[in-house]
Amino acid sequence: MKVPVWNPAVEFLEREALERLQLANLRKTVAWALKTPFYRRRLAEVGLHRPEDIASLRDLRDIPYTTKEDLRESYPRGLLAVDLEQVVRLHTSSGTTGMPTVIHHTQADLDAWTELVARCIVATGASRRDVFQNMTNYGLFTGGLGLHYGAERVGMLVIPASSGNTSRQVQLMRHFQTSVVHATPSYLLHLHSALMDEDTDTSPPSLRKAFIGAEPHSEETRRKIETLFEIEAYNSYGLSEMNGPGVAFECLYKTGLHLWEDAYLLEVIDPDSLRPCAEEETGEIVLTTLQRQATPLLRYRTRDLSHLVGGHCPCGRSHRRLARIKGRSDDMLIVNGVNVFPSQIEEALMKAPEVGTNYLIQVEKRGALDRLAVKTEVHAALFAGDARVLSDLRERIAERIRAAVLVKPSIELHEPGSLPVSEGKARRVLDLRPAF
Amino acid sequence: MKVPVWNPAVEFLEREALERLQLANLRKTVAWALKTPFYRRRLAEVGLHRPEDIASLRDLRDIPYTTKEDLRESYPRGLLAVDLEQVVRLHTSSGTTGMPTVIHHTQADLDAWTELVARCIVATGASRRDVFQNMTNYGLFTGGLGLHYGAERVGMLVIPASSGNTSRQVQLMRHFQTSVVHATPSYLLHLHSALMDEDTDTSPPSLRKAFIGAEPHSEETRRKIETLFEIEAYNSYGLSEMNGPGVAFECLYKTGLHLWEDAYLLEVIDPDSLRPCAEEETGEIVLTTLQRQATPLLRYRTRDLSHLVGGHCPCGRSHRRLARIKGRSDDMLIVNGVNVFPSQIEEALMKAPEVGTNYLIQVEKRGALDRLAVKTEVHAALFAGDARVLSDLRERIAERIRAAVLVKPSIELHEPGSLPVSEGKARRVLDLRPAF
Repeated sequence: MKVPVWNPAVEFLEREALERLQLANLRKTVAWALKTPFYRRRLAEVGLHRPEDIASLRDLRDIPYTTKEDLRESYPRGLLAVDLEQVVRLHTSSGTTGMPTVIHHTQADLDAWTELVARCIVATGASRRDVFQNMTNYGLFTGGLGLHYGAERVGMLVIPASSGNTSRQVQLMRHFQTSVVHATPSYLLHLHSALMDEDTDTSPPSLRKAFIGAEPHSEETRRKIETLFEIEAYNSYGLSEMNGPGVAFECLYKTGLHLWEDAYLLEVIDPDSLRPCAEEETGEIVLTTLQRQATPLLRYRTRDLSHLVGGHCPCGRSHRRLARIKGRSDDMLIVNGVNVFPSQIEEALMKAPEVGTNYLIQVEKRGALDRLAVKTEVHAALFAGDARVLSDLRERIAERIRAAVLVKPSIELHEPGSLPVSEGKARRVLDLRPAF
Repeated sequence: MKVPVWNPAVEFLEREALERLQLANLRKTVAWALKTPFYRRRLAEVGLHRPEDIASLRDLRDIPYTTKEDLRESYPRGLLAVDLEQVVRLHTSSGTTGMPTVIHHTQADLDAWTELVARCIVATGASRRDVFQNMTNYGLFTGGLGLHYGAERVGMLVIPASSGNTSRQVQLMRHFQTSVVHATPSYLLHLHSALMDEDTDTSPPSLRKAFIGAEPHSEETRRKIETLFEIEAYNSYGLSEMNGPGVAFECLYKTGLHLWEDAYLLEVIDPDSLRPCAEEETGEIVLTTLQRQATPLLRYRTRDLSHLVGGHCPCGRSHRRLARIKGRSDDMLIVNGVNVFPSQIEEALMKAPEVGTNYLIQVEKRGALDRLAVKTEVHAALFAGDARVLSDLRERIAERIRAAVLVKPSIELHEPGSLPVSEGKARRVLDLRPAF
C-alpha cells in the first residue's frame, strides 16, 4: 500500500535529525517565552536567562511545568510573546466565570497550525478529491476553524456545516456526496440514528471516512461507528492550549496517534510523582510548543492520560504515537465534546441569590448524546408561592450556566435538606456515562 | 484627511479603464458560464455561443436575467463551471424544504472574495492595528467566514466570536479591547441593552467602529447605534449568491455603499417593466459576477431595492455607490439577519399531519430583536386530550421550522375556524416591525 503523505521531508525525518530540529526549535521557543512576563519570571527562578542556556533536549527537565492555572493567572496577556499588532487571531476558552484562558496567534502560527492539520488529513488517505463536511462548531471553539483551514490547504471541497441541525447535515451529505466528516463520536452515533429514522434507511453511500475527536471514547465506539456507516474512523487529538486539532492523528494503519514532534515536544509523566513514564506506561501528556511565536508554552500539563506506543508504525513516519486518550487527571468533564469544569457551574449557580449550598452535577447518556443535569437546593419559601417563579428561576439558572460553560443543563430545584449530604469532601459530580 | 485604501490601483481606477476591465472580465465570465449546463442552454437561446460575441458592455442587455428560481432549479451542480476537484468550498442556503441554492468556490474565488472584503474593511479606516470581534454566525452563513477571511487578510486581530451568547460577547470586548465589531444592527441594539444592564453601565471605551449589515435598517437606526456606543457605524451590503459580504460597503464619508465594479457589473432596473432606472431612481439591483470561476452568475436579480447615488464621493474611489437597501421586491423576510421565505415555513408546517389549512406568520420587534411567531389551526380533537400532546406538537413544529429556516418560531395552536380567513388571496404574513 502506498502511504499517502503531506510533507514527507518532515514526516519521515529520521529520529536523530528530528531531535536536532527539536533542539533548534526549543531554543527558539525559549527565546519567544523569555519575551513574556510570565516566563521571564518563571525561567529566571531556575536560572534560565538565554536560549543558549539550553544545551540539549535533556535540559528541558530543568524547566518548571506550566499548568492551566498558570494560563488563567496570565490572562489575558501575560503569555503574549509578540507585539499585539502581529497577532491575527485569538481563541479563548469559555470564561464568564472569570477563569478563561487565551491563545494568541501570529499569521505564521496560523500557517503552522494549518500545515499540521493538513498532515493529519492526508495521513488518513483523504485528499483534495474528497468532499469534507465539517460538523464541529465554528468560532472560538478550535475544532471547526482548525479542521476547516487544514482541509482548505489540502484542497478538499469544504462544507462548513458547523455543528447541530442534524436534518440539514443529512441533506448536505446526500446532496453533495460527502466523503469525509469531522465530528465527535457521540454526534456521529446520534447522526446515524437520525439517518435510520429517515424513509431511505441507509447511510450516504459516498461516505468513506470520519475524523473523530474532542471527547474520550473507546475502541468499541470507533468500531461501532465504522460498522454502522461502513466507513473508516480515525482518532484525532488536540487541545485548545496547543492550537486545537492537529496535535496527533491516526494514519491509515490506526496503530496509535502520530504526534507531530517537530511542533510539540512530548513527555508522559506520572501525574503524582511527576517522574517520566516508561513506554506503554500510562501517564499525563506534557507538551511543549516548538513552533508557536505568539503563545509559547513550556512543559504544559495537559491533564490528558495516555501512553506512548512502542515499536514502529508500518507507515514509516518517525513521529511517535500516543494511544487513544484514556481520561483526565483532573475533574474536567467533556460533555458532547465541550470542556466543562464543575467549578464553572458552581460559580454560575452561586450567582443566583435563591440558590442554597448543596448541589449535584450529573452527566448521563441519553441515546448517543450526553446530557448535563444540575440539581440544586433553593430557599424553602420559593416552593410556597407561584409555580411560575420556580420555572423562571430554572430557566434563569440554566441560561446562566449555558453562558458560562456553553452547554445548557436541565435544572432540578429541591427544598433545603433534600439532596444527599456527603460526609467530608462533598461528592458534587456524578458521571453516569458508561466507562470504557 | 488621508483616505485609507487597500488596493489603490483598482479602487481609484478611472472610469474608462474600469469599464475596459469590466468588459474583459465579462468575456471571461461568459466563457466560464458557457461551461455550465444551465447557461449553455440559456445563452444558446439568445444566440450567444462564444465570449467573443460580447463586443461591448452594452451587449449585456441581450443576456436574459438569472433568478433565484433558476439557482434552485440548477441545484446542486447545474451552475458549476469547473471540475469538482477545483472546488474548495461551498455555501448553501437553508434547504430542508427542497429549495436550497448553492454557490461553489475555487481557491481563486475565495482569494478574490477575501480581497473584496479587505477593501471594504480598510475603506472604513480600520486597519491591522484593530481588534475585530466578528459577532456573526460562522459556518454556512457567509457573513461570519466572509468577514473573518477579509479581516485576517488585513492583519487585524480577529476574535471569531460568532453569534449569540451576549454576556460572552461583552466579556470578550472588555478583556481584549475590541475596537471594531461586525453584527446586524438589531443585535447591536440588543447588545447595548445588555451592556446597560451590567453594573458598569458603560460601553467598552475601546470600541471605535461597527460594520452593520444582513438586514435592512434605517438611517435612524445607524445613528442610534453610533450615539449609544459613541462609535462610527458603516453599512455593509452583500448576498449569499454574490459570495456574501464584500459586494458594497461604505467608506469613511458614508455617502452610499461603493460597489466593487471590477467584481460585479451593476444594473438597477424597474422590477415590473425591467427597464433600466435612472440615477437616483429606486429599482431592483441586478448583478453580474465578473471574477467568479466556479459559479458565474449573469444578470442576477437580487430582489433588493436601492438606487444609484449621483455625483462623486470625496474619497475619490471611482466605484459607484448604492444607497442603503430599502427593502425587497419579493416576499422574503429578514429575521435577525437570517433570510426566511414564507413558503419554507409553509412547507415545514404542512409536514405535520395534525396541521390544518389556515395559518399566519407574524414577525414583530421584541426589544431590539425580531421575533417570529407562527399561528396555525390544528385538528379539533387535539384540544380534547392531554395538554402534553399539544405542547409536544408545538415543540415538534417549532423544531421542524427551525431546521428549515434556521430561526425557531414561537408556535400558537388554534382550533379550526378560529384564525381570520381572508377573502381571495390569503394574507399569510404579518410583518409588525416598524417601517423605515
